[in-house]
Amino acid sequence: MGNNKKMVNSITARDVDFAKWYTDLCLKAELMDYSDSKGFIIYRPYGYALWEGIMKYLDGELKDTGHENVYMPLLIPESLFQKEKEHVEGFAPETAMVTTTGKEDLAERLIIRPTSEVLFCTHYSKVINSYRDLPKLYNQWCSVVRWEKTTRPFLRGKEFLWQEGHTAHSNEQEARAETLGILEMYRKLGSDLLAMPFVTGRKTEREKFAGAIETYSIEALMHDGQALQSGTTHYFGQGFAKAFDIRYADINNRMSYVYQTSWGVSTRLIGAVIMVHGDDEGLVLPPYLAPTQIVIIPIQGQNEDVVRATTDLKKRLLDKGFRVKLDDSNRSPGWKFSEHEMKGIPVRIEVGPRDVSQGKAVIVRRHDRNKTMIDLDQIDRAMAGILKDIHDAMYEKARAHVEANTYEAKTYDEFKELIKKGGYVQMSISGDEAEEQIKKDTTATARIIPFDQKMITETCPVTGEKAKQTVWFARAY
Amino acid sequence: MGNNKKMVNSITARDVDFAKWYTDLCLKAELMDYSDSKGFIIYRPYGYALWEGIMKYLDGELKDTGHENVYMPLLIPESLFQKEKEHVEGFAPETAMVTTTGKEDLAERLIIRPTSEVLFCTHYSKVINSYRDLPKLYNQWCSVVRWEKTTRPFLRGKEFLWQEGHTAHSNEQEARAETLGILEMYRKLGSDLLAMPFVTGRKTEREKFAGAIETYSIEALMHDGQALQSGTTHYFGQGFAKAFDIRYADINNRMSYVYQTSWGVSTRLIGAVIMVHGDDEGLVLPPYLAPTQIVIIPIQGQNEDVVRATTDLKKRLLDKGFRVKLDDSNRSPGWKFSEHEMKGIPVRIEVGPRDVSQGKAVIVRRHDRNKTMIDLDQIDRAMAGILKDIHDAMYEKARAHVEANTYEAKTYDEFKELIKKGGYVQMSISGDEAEEQIKKDTTATARIIPFDQKMITETCPVTGEKAKQTVWFARAY
Repeated sequence: MGNNKKMVNSITARDVDFAKWYTDLCLKAELMDYSDSKGFIIYRPYGYALWEGIMKYLDGELKDTGHENVYMPLLIPESLFQKEKEHVEGFAPETAMVTTTGKEDLAERLIIRPTSEVLFCTHYSKVINSYRDLPKLYNQWCSVVRWEKTTRPFLRGKEFLWQEGHTAHSNEQEARAETLGILEMYRKLGSDLLAMPFVTGRKTEREKFAGAIETYSIEALMHDGQALQSGTTHYFGQGFAKAFDIRYADINNRMSYVYQTSWGVSTRLIGAVIMVHGDDEGLVLPPYLAPTQIVIIPIQGQNEDVVRATTDLKKRLLDKGFRVKLDDSNRSPGWKFSEHEMKGIPVRIEVGPRDVSQGKAVIVRRHDRNKTMIDLDQIDRAMAGILKDIHDAMYEKARAHVEANTYEAKTYDEFKELIKKGGYVQMSISGDEAEEQIKKDTTATARIIPFDQKMITETCPVTGEKAKQTVWFARAY
Repeated sequence: MGNNKKMVNSITARDVDFAKWYTDLCLKAELMDYSDSKGFIIYRPYGYALWEGIMKYLDGELKDTGHENVYMPLLIPESLFQKEKEHVEGFAPETAMVTTTGKEDLAERLIIRPTSEVLFCTHYSKVINSYRDLPKLYNQWCSVVRWEKTTRPFLRGKEFLWQEGHTAHSNEQEARAETLGILEMYRKLGSDLLAMPFVTGRKTEREKFAGAIETYSIEALMHDGQALQSGTTHYFGQGFAKAFDIRYADINNRMSYVYQTSWGVSTRLIGAVIMVHGDDEGLVLPPYLAPTQIVIIPIQGQNEDVVRATTDLKKRLLDKGFRVKLDDSNRSPGWKFSEHEMKGIPVRIEVGPRDVSQGKAVIVRRHDRNKTMIDLDQIDRAMAGILKDIHDAMYEKARAHVEANTYEAKTYDEFKELIKKGGYVQMSISGDEAEEQIKKDTTATARIIPFDQKMITETCPVTGEKAKQTVWFARAY
């Protein structure tokens, strides 16, 4: 049991030092490792499997709604990158540039894509000619590079994995519907796969994407009360279309500029899963995302009845389509309990000789450590329900956490007090100036302007001017 | 029919100019487009879908055999890259280097991965400690950059997509078995998915991978008689392990270096599919790879009976799991025939009013243009057999092409004559010196040393020295 103790002890408790707990967990659950390239991480098999789960779900949803995958070049000529003014100002400072090869210096510097708007736009300007070519609903799975100064595993890195969707439409209405449709798809990814209640809304002018008319966001609330922007969708209008001359002939043969959108979620979602659900024993994975949903642990693994029962159980669960592992290694049960708790496997089934003789097994749920006896021959039939219960309970816990940590402020003093507690604070503000002041005073930033607007005060508590909209603020990662 | 004619006419015939036919086809079938970054291509939806088909098949095979996916950083510090001497010599000239960001020059140059051996090795040196940690069977799907001078779509580019497997084992036997096991997996990918008969064997010293003890290859023969190296597997022995200090404690607690392998296939396989199967009308896709396996074309699409019959047929085929499209656009049937032939869709089903009244439909197979009548209500049940027949016939045609174009040479003059015809020429040679001379005289290179060795002559026709092994030569892409 020495190993067992050591492993658990080696994670900092969440409430002692949340940041340290987080990086401890990333390493101990073998999700990632640091690399020799500073600010770049290695996605280890268990961490990459989480990303594969997200890709599989979202790629399916995107294909079902008519989106097609493409792959654009990694490198962008600097001159091309500079075509859309706001966009280049937003990204230029954090670009990595290729200037030379093993043989010779390049005539023009090439930028490693920080995002691929300009590549999609250039391509669209070639392949979109007629209304028949619209809409174009393209998506790309790739990695991008942004030269961030401070980095944290999954949350902020010099390189991250993501999908970037780029679409072109014949009219504004359709492009706006796409922007909001994908936002809803992301929200559903949260509720259906990650057991995570994202709040959604529009970004303020100050927080929106470089080059967008409007940016929408899904935001998640971490255990420590800080928010995490977990995905964004952008409505571009015709800005990029004009900069890149993307025009089509409509049904009456008149030339018009297209309307565009872009949107993305990234491996940052892995960070959200860790920080929303994890606890002091390690990861807690939502069952539909978990690479292994069920681990079977034989107690007295030499016992023939136990071997027979656990092997049979594994087979039955596999046959039903569950992702299941039988840990019949020669480690102690205690070591295995710790290890699989650290890995956040949603369901543990313990089977000992006495259990087998009584036709029973013990089921332990990771998220609440609830322990129940169950008939061995019922497990495979009961499992879908067990996983659904776990998913629902994890979602509800996270939802209650958001609810309990969302406040309204009528005065700026009240705002300052509330924002210290962590969580979202809603306030009705006058605009950019108030937002700027709030950030300066409290480090809190505007997270979303909710769709459902309700004015809390008529006057902005920060500027004393007329309040224009209610905004959700939080300290954020 | 104007469009129809124009489209077909716009592809150069294969036998007029094979190289031109190839690039015409890549563009006209909308597989790719050129980008503004010279030597980099855009994978358009139809081209990327082929890669997705290959990924899906191979990822499944790799997971079934215990391999795990990871993701390593895009950038490699130059000092790290230089750790394994042969390896760096092989790759250094064609590396792209990041030297600066939007803000400041980097202290050390970073190389965009041309392949990731050094990253995997560094990681392995950290995570492999005990025999319990072995084997490590890691794979990565990513893009790599090599600064090639002359580029051709899918065949050779400054960037390409691939998978790179990197494994570590406790003993030589297991590592060698992995090297050959993956070679066999690649061969099967050819025969089962691509309808392509790869010949397999070992590479000569001259042709092997920088840093490998042995390299194995799958080679395909294009329609024009040139060979294409389509994938390789490498046995590294302990070379990298010693350079990167990858050691483990065995069961007796003695420290040993691991034995390693690496292996990969890339988007080059798309090029192979095009050049092995394609014809003057366009792509010919093997049915298990084809993104769309069946296209249904209504003749007189306004006719209600035709609408009903084709809609029902599509549904029945979808229900059976086939990838099917109903082209009910208002283009002419002739335009559609051309378009879907260009795209290489394996099966076309034509349904007109008279067909419906007789309960019949016309089936046209893309690869041999064979046209048959079939009972409408039998199509869904017959389709699995039809696709299998097509797959088998395409494989057999490609196999017969290899057989008809594989020769043996007993003299160097005979070799020179045969190699002009295209195809493989087998000759028993003395070694490196002969190989070098052959390349100089004929541009042909050693493709493989077949596993099944049979000496053709006792003396090497090139050097006059004792022949050591029989080697397959070809001109190659």
